[in-house]
Amino acid sequence: MAYSSKTIEQAVEYLSKFPGIGSKSALRMVLYLAKRPEHEVFGMAEAIKSIKTKLQVCSECGNLSDSPLCSICASPARVKQLLCVVEDFKDVLAVENTAQFKGLYHVLGGLISPIDGVGPEDLNIPKLFERIKTNHINEVVFALSANMEGDTTTYYLSKKIKEMGIAVSTISRGISVGSDLEFTDEITLGRSIINRVPYEL
Amino acid sequence: MAYSSKTIEQAVEYLSKFPGIGSKSALRMVLYLAKRPEHEVFGMAEAIKSIKTKLQVCSECGNLSDSPLCSICASPARVKQLLCVVEDFKDVLAVENTAQFKGLYHVLGGLISPIDGVGPEDLNIPKLFERIKTNHINEVVFALSANMEGDTTTYYLSKKIKEMGIAVSTISRGISVGSDLEFTDEITLGRSIINRVPYEL
Repeated sequence: MAYSSKTIEQAVEYLSKFPGIGSKSALRMVLYLAKRPEHEVFGMAEAIKSIKTKLQVCSECGNLSDSPLCSICASPARVKQLLCVVEDFKDVLAVENTAQFKGLYHVLGGLISPIDGVGPEDLNIPKLFERIKTNHINEVVFALSANMEGDTTTYYLSKKIKEMGIAVSTISRGISVGSDLEFTDEITLGRSIINRVPYEL
Repeated sequence: MAYSSKTIEQAVEYLSKFPGIGSKSALRMVLYLAKRPEHEVFGMAEAIKSIKTKLQVCSECGNLSDSPLCSICASPARVKQLLCVVEDFKDVLAVENTAQFKGLYHVLGGLISPIDGVGPEDLNIPKLFERIKTNHINEVVFALSANMEGDTTTYYLSKKIKEMGIAVSTISRGISVGSDLEFTDEITLGRSIINRVPYEL
């Protein structure tokens, strides 16, 4: 598109780099900003800059954080012997929001995927083994996506961790809360039968 | 959601203000930025700031521009006696992209809409009449949306402009190029029959 303004053209070019944002959505965003007060637009620009200037990777778990040690690793209230292995920051958020996990996290930064050329050496794995050894971890919970890459990664890591004599578990697969049995795919339904749990009254 | 990082929380808060962007999309945008090189993220922040610092409203037509007079009004190649009335900047872009209009624009900045409390006094209308008088305009083309607000605005303005003895036209309504007759609504089809044009071989 030929914009009559270089300023708009440049802003559209930057904003349309976001995943899922095309040039029409980007233009809508620019026109929205043009109508907002200056302090709000400047605040947004500063917040975007601070993603690069303030955000760090936690030296312990690999989570995104405002300090060298993230708030979860630094918290005295967390169980230090229990580790939950996740793919990325979004998964830490998802598990945290359940309020059901009281241990620490370990963020891999990806999953093993031979098709995409991602091997164990590309992930935050050496640090995982270091933490297991030095922190007397007694259980590692895998909370990875229920797809081929997630299953491969869980298999690869759990084999090595079990050899160290440490308990390994995975989050349960089964039918989602609220979903109809007839619309559940057979693999999920099959797994939920194999992994059935005692019914408690 | 409880974010482990204030930086992320703040950036998500700002980005989710964009129309159509929720907190999940905003988080995806923040995580995307966290992976991009610093110069790119800083460039985006500057581009956002420049929307407020560099962008101006053209003193002549009301279009968004980098200079007091927009590039279209300043161009010696445009026909100065022909005006196209549009709602906003996006519509200027849309008409420009057809490469079928060689005159100048006039951006109203909205449409007359009694339901939303927008009257003629809230729009860029006095300047339109001033331009018609001082620039010896001989035709005004209305290119407004084909809805109630667009039709009301066209009616209100064209009545006044005709009284000044100046030709008024509207862009034609009809079935879209490439669309099936059976799926066209009856009002559009009816209008396209009334406004039929001689078929030229």
